[in-house]
Amino acid sequence: MLDVCLIGTSGMVPLKHRWLTAFHAVSEGHAILIDCGEGTQIAMSEASLRLKPIDTICLTHCHADHIAGLPGLLLTMGNQGRTEKVTLIGPPGFSEIVRCLLVIAPLPFDVILCETDGKSGHVFKCGNIEIRPFAVKHVMPCLGYSLILPRGGRFDPEKARALQIPVRCWSLLQKGETVTIDDKVIHPEAVVGPPRKGIHVVYSTDTRPVPEITEAGKNSDLMVLEGIYPGSEKLDKAKEWGHMTFEEAARLAFNAHTKELWLTHFSQSVERPEDFLENAAAVFRNTKIGKDGMKKHFVFED
Amino acid sequence: MLDVCLIGTSGMVPLKHRWLTAFHAVSEGHAILIDCGEGTQIAMSEASLRLKPIDTICLTHCHADHIAGLPGLLLTMGNQGRTEKVTLIGPPGFSEIVRCLLVIAPLPFDVILCETDGKSGHVFKCGNIEIRPFAVKHVMPCLGYSLILPRGGRFDPEKARALQIPVRCWSLLQKGETVTIDDKVIHPEAVVGPPRKGIHVVYSTDTRPVPEITEAGKNSDLMVLEGIYPGSEKLDKAKEWGHMTFEEAARLAFNAHTKELWLTHFSQSVERPEDFLENAAAVFRNTKIGKDGMKKHFVFED
Repeated sequence: MLDVCLIGTSGMVPLKHRWLTAFHAVSEGHAILIDCGEGTQIAMSEASLRLKPIDTICLTHCHADHIAGLPGLLLTMGNQGRTEKVTLIGPPGFSEIVRCLLVIAPLPFDVILCETDGKSGHVFKCGNIEIRPFAVKHVMPCLGYSLILPRGGRFDPEKARALQIPVRCWSLLQKGETVTIDDKVIHPEAVVGPPRKGIHVVYSTDTRPVPEITEAGKNSDLMVLEGIYPGSEKLDKAKEWGHMTFEEAARLAFNAHTKELWLTHFSQSVERPEDFLENAAAVFRNTKIGKDGMKKHFVFED
Repeated sequence: MLDVCLIGTSGMVPLKHRWLTAFHAVSEGHAILIDCGEGTQIAMSEASLRLKPIDTICLTHCHADHIAGLPGLLLTMGNQGRTEKVTLIGPPGFSEIVRCLLVIAPLPFDVILCETDGKSGHVFKCGNIEIRPFAVKHVMPCLGYSLILPRGGRFDPEKARALQIPVRCWSLLQKGETVTIDDKVIHPEAVVGPPRKGIHVVYSTDTRPVPEITEAGKNSDLMVLEGIYPGSEKLDKAKEWGHMTFEEAARLAFNAHTKELWLTHFSQSVERPEDFLENAAAVFRNTKIGKDGMKKHFVFED
């Protein structure tokens, strides 16, 4: 199972009633944080999310509203006793910037910096979660992230009994391991069906609508996308600064055949984004206006 | 007149119910911010303080809880239309660190960096407020700040009339300027008495109690001092990390003959610092436990 939380929903400026956009996903004690603007550590505390289990931090890009909270958050993780390494993933050039920011953050753990352009098919792992970055289109190098919790095939006990495999070996085979019984090598394919649908969540903000987002979100369970402006009257501004309107985000969700869309990264000029839900829902029905601390618990489908 | 506000009262970690310690003083539209941890810009918004009028930012030292909010705050000032330069004052080495942090903050105004060891008698000006940094004792170079709004002497209209000075020249003389009337040079001393007591506020945090603080706060109107731990059972810890207990701060206030003491920079282990007021008030009666957004309006005494 996978638990996700939209930590904040503000774009560009942290507001007193809205934290900056960031996202959290956790499975079996391994947590991923995507983006870390000023105040993200406080917003996490408000959402009852623990900092210490964060193994991987993914940064979409290096604008302050997505990265300025990094030194403080890492320091607090250290103060809370974390000693295991933390992996940071970001676009080309982000390592240099992170190194600059960490000048105020002496840490009791190693920080591993992984740069990717999001076009090379790099896959990272955090526990069992696969992290697939993809390139999007902003005013600087920027990544979206696909998070996938894969699910193995169905174990067939009838076949296992027929092959006289002892029960103690069943779980190993189910996990994809090969076992040897009395010199007979048994591959998992002999008793395990093809991989089943896992859980698939996509997060992408600070981008124009590009086909890479639809591709990444194809048949996903949830897409979390920016909708900086509710209406098309600000489309020119969205284009100029590399952002998306509600309608544009909804169009991506519709084309991706995702199950659900959460909008986030609202401009400070938008006091009540929920008043404009219909701008997106007219295009993609299952749209929700993001709220700070909004959560969802995913389990594998039967 | 001088308006001051204690923006936050937390030490080391920003909490969901307590912002990091920072201080604001403004006189005639010129504002000073002292310290800028993560979230200070949001805390200022909550306290109804505007960012744009900040002309000078004083940093006590370069620990993240006092400086990590700087890039975000300056960026927001830029977004709000500030184009006039901002002066930053800090201890030796702070410029290098600020330059690193500002890698994520492209600004539409100049930032002037002024380093001082707090021992050289440097005086800075922000509007009419004099800023006098002084060296304190922490685990890294650290400054306290004395803010003084000076007040000129009393104008004597009888003397002015006796010297046949036209009324139109009175305000110039009162402001300390010399005027010439019919080839007669009149110095302000002729009609203006000696300087009167101005308004004097001292801010010092992240330090052991040192005589420099008493000296800076002598006969002041307000001292804002850290009290990281309420009780003396944590004195060893305070000593180890370069901090002060409630009692130590109160002793400094008592010795300085200040009018009022505000305590701040409370450890996250202290849920309700107000429960321990007496630990300080037993030493210095007019102690207040700092609260986020606590304000005071000072006018010149009659």
